[in-house]
Amino acid sequence: MGYIEELGKKAVQAKGKIASASTDEKNAVLVKIAEVLRNHTEKILQENDKDIASARENGITETMVDRLRLTEERIEGIADACIQLVNLEDPVGEILEGSVRPNGMRITKVRVPLGVAGIIYESRPNVTVDAAALCIKSGNAAILRGGKEAIHSNMVLMELMQQALKECGFAGETVQLVGDTSREVAAEMMRANDYIDVLIPRGGAGLIQAIVKNATVPVIETGTGNCHLYVDETAELSMAVSIADNGKTQRPSVCNALETCLVHQSAAKEFLPMLAEAFEAHQVEIRGCDRTREILGAGVMLATEEDYATEFLDYIMSVKVVDSIEEAIEHIRKYSTGHSECIVTSNYSHAEQFQKEVDSACVYVNCSTRFTDGGEFGLGAEIGISTQKLHVRGPMGLRELTTQKYLINGNGQIR
Amino acid sequence: MGYIEELGKKAVQAKGKIASASTDEKNAVLVKIAEVLRNHTEKILQENDKDIASARENGITETMVDRLRLTEERIEGIADACIQLVNLEDPVGEILEGSVRPNGMRITKVRVPLGVAGIIYESRPNVTVDAAALCIKSGNAAILRGGKEAIHSNMVLMELMQQALKECGFAGETVQLVGDTSREVAAEMMRANDYIDVLIPRGGAGLIQAIVKNATVPVIETGTGNCHLYVDETAELSMAVSIADNGKTQRPSVCNALETCLVHQSAAKEFLPMLAEAFEAHQVEIRGCDRTREILGAGVMLATEEDYATEFLDYIMSVKVVDSIEEAIEHIRKYSTGHSECIVTSNYSHAEQFQKEVDSACVYVNCSTRFTDGGEFGLGAEIGISTQKLHVRGPMGLRELTTQKYLINGNGQIR
Repeated sequence: MGYIEELGKKAVQAKGKIASASTDEKNAVLVKIAEVLRNHTEKILQENDKDIASARENGITETMVDRLRLTEERIEGIADACIQLVNLEDPVGEILEGSVRPNGMRITKVRVPLGVAGIIYESRPNVTVDAAALCIKSGNAAILRGGKEAIHSNMVLMELMQQALKECGFAGETVQLVGDTSREVAAEMMRANDYIDVLIPRGGAGLIQAIVKNATVPVIETGTGNCHLYVDETAELSMAVSIADNGKTQRPSVCNALETCLVHQSAAKEFLPMLAEAFEAHQVEIRGCDRTREILGAGVMLATEEDYATEFLDYIMSVKVVDSIEEAIEHIRKYSTGHSECIVTSNYSHAEQFQKEVDSACVYVNCSTRFTDGGEFGLGAEIGISTQKLHVRGPMGLRELTTQKYLINGNGQIR
Repeated sequence: MGYIEELGKKAVQAKGKIASASTDEKNAVLVKIAEVLRNHTEKILQENDKDIASARENGITETMVDRLRLTEERIEGIADACIQLVNLEDPVGEILEGSVRPNGMRITKVRVPLGVAGIIYESRPNVTVDAAALCIKSGNAAILRGGKEAIHSNMVLMELMQQALKECGFAGETVQLVGDTSREVAAEMMRANDYIDVLIPRGGAGLIQAIVKNATVPVIETGTGNCHLYVDETAELSMAVSIADNGKTQRPSVCNALETCLVHQSAAKEFLPMLAEAFEAHQVEIRGCDRTREILGAGVMLATEEDYATEFLDYIMSVKVVDSIEEAIEHIRKYSTGHSECIVTSNYSHAEQFQKEVDSACVYVNCSTRFTDGGEFGLGAEIGISTQKLHVRGPMGLRELTTQKYLINGNGQIR
């Protein structure tokens, strides 16, 4: 029996109980997980030290080491996030719609858990608890496959969560960790249609594309954001600068950060020098088209096709001067990953046109793309931002970890 | 440039206009398609004759020939189905929910078309018009790949639909037919992520599984129905017989027909002879477990594991006597394709348990699984029955051919 098959069978055994658990029962597990994590902070830190040590041995950058590192404060934060989930509404059982058919048969559409979620992610060990807790609250079993760099941390966190589940009367295998972090086992996971109902990759574009290409289990693509700002002819320029600066510099490493600024040719001459000045504080590098360079000087690097297609996640922005809103929309159509795009404009019909024609999950008028986030949208928690069109688009909270089911009640109706 | 790439680029060009078309504009196209089809009945029949002739040459069964055949009456029916769609509510633009955030930013979640739908189907040429019309009404462009047996019929139908689109001011390429019915081109279609937003296969289990295994474009699995009836200890037996007979014999070739009957051991002795008697009219073959054969006699063939896993789509039913509702649910969990299952019972808590624990798209109490159908559910039209959990589950109408998008309007908000 394959490694994933073994985990899969256990997950399928466990999923029924968590799917039909009451909100109180699931909340009790979340509270217990928080408690157990807090009570074993030292043990977690010891295991985390092993990961940090081998990361250093392997010459991993300090930024990566920081992503990997747990501290007393971070463990407290992880436990706290579990408690936060207690207060969120349980999506399971919600009655979505219904009707009584002319023959007297009653149809009710209700919200139910997906079943078994497979989450594949990279080095941050907090995702192990975060993803497991979201799955538990939404009534799903979960199989988690984290990065090999975090394996010791992930194993101890999983052990503690399973202990909490058992103390609350659930199978430990409600959530499981893929302990074998080989590529073969990851590939097995992507094709485990008999056991896993949905795969949610969380990580860089490379990871996500590999999963989309190889998975037969349905995938929810998340989090690649080549986000655009279009500064229209009639834009209030100080607002445009503020939104560009916020989108690029407030947290450049996240998916809702801006990567490209398109500017109408009649606004470019005034706007671009303002932008360049604002960018000085963070030494943002601008890569521009010929017209950008005419305005800002030849010190600006020429933007290539590849630059326009790149999610920099860094203090770099590509800039292009365009002749019309149509050219801006066409550019976005070509390069966008369908995450978040923004227009700054004072023109009513341009605002309408942009929101209608730009085919992305979130389309903004006159506010920052940095708001594409479960917390900011009021979902309370988030497992990722979907950039695909099936099932869910944009920030995914608890509700997005569910599906629906029809219940049909009659008294002998036939066709 | 690959064949599908060429079609895909044209579809992407065409999708914007149909996506933002008003309901009136889309309805005009549907009316025009109906008119054009009616005006060219003779031409359609001529092309259909070519398909019939080559089907006969290739020794295809009369049942298959009948699926392929168009008649004046059937063309009238196809045209009529287009007119029916005019009266259905346009799902595009529906405001799903929204809120004003504490910072004053307004978030609106609206329904938008998926973009380009790829439909892969088998021999019935009516699907060509049916699928195209559903896509048009829901604002989607479509690339249709029908079976090679129907290629002449499909080509003339597509030509006429494109003519209607053009007469109404839309690009003919809003809907396109894959004229090259080779396997290579089908494979290309399954991996055309840059052009196709969703693949919907319509056809037998083999076709659907091949697509699930090979596609990188998101797929909505449809229509494989290994549907179960469980006759509980307390079932009203005449009702159980009526539902079993309706589910098996009213139209055995469709996905919501019953394939397996599970019966509680304390009801079996009385129920099974009643069932066998009702089945005589259609000479339904029963394949049963040992206990079934003890009751009905050794003339009943022994059901194999494979029988329980088979969607017969024929006058054959597998039967199993079970000791409890739990055993019935466990059997369903093992063999079901997640389409439709039914319990006949008078016991309140068994009805509740069955609807809670059976993980299928449609779970019935005391009425026939044959009702799993877009028309019967009041959707008005149907592109298939989803047996997967992502995006949509159960009958898919116009609304299920859409996705959502967030519009965020502000006046300078940043984080």
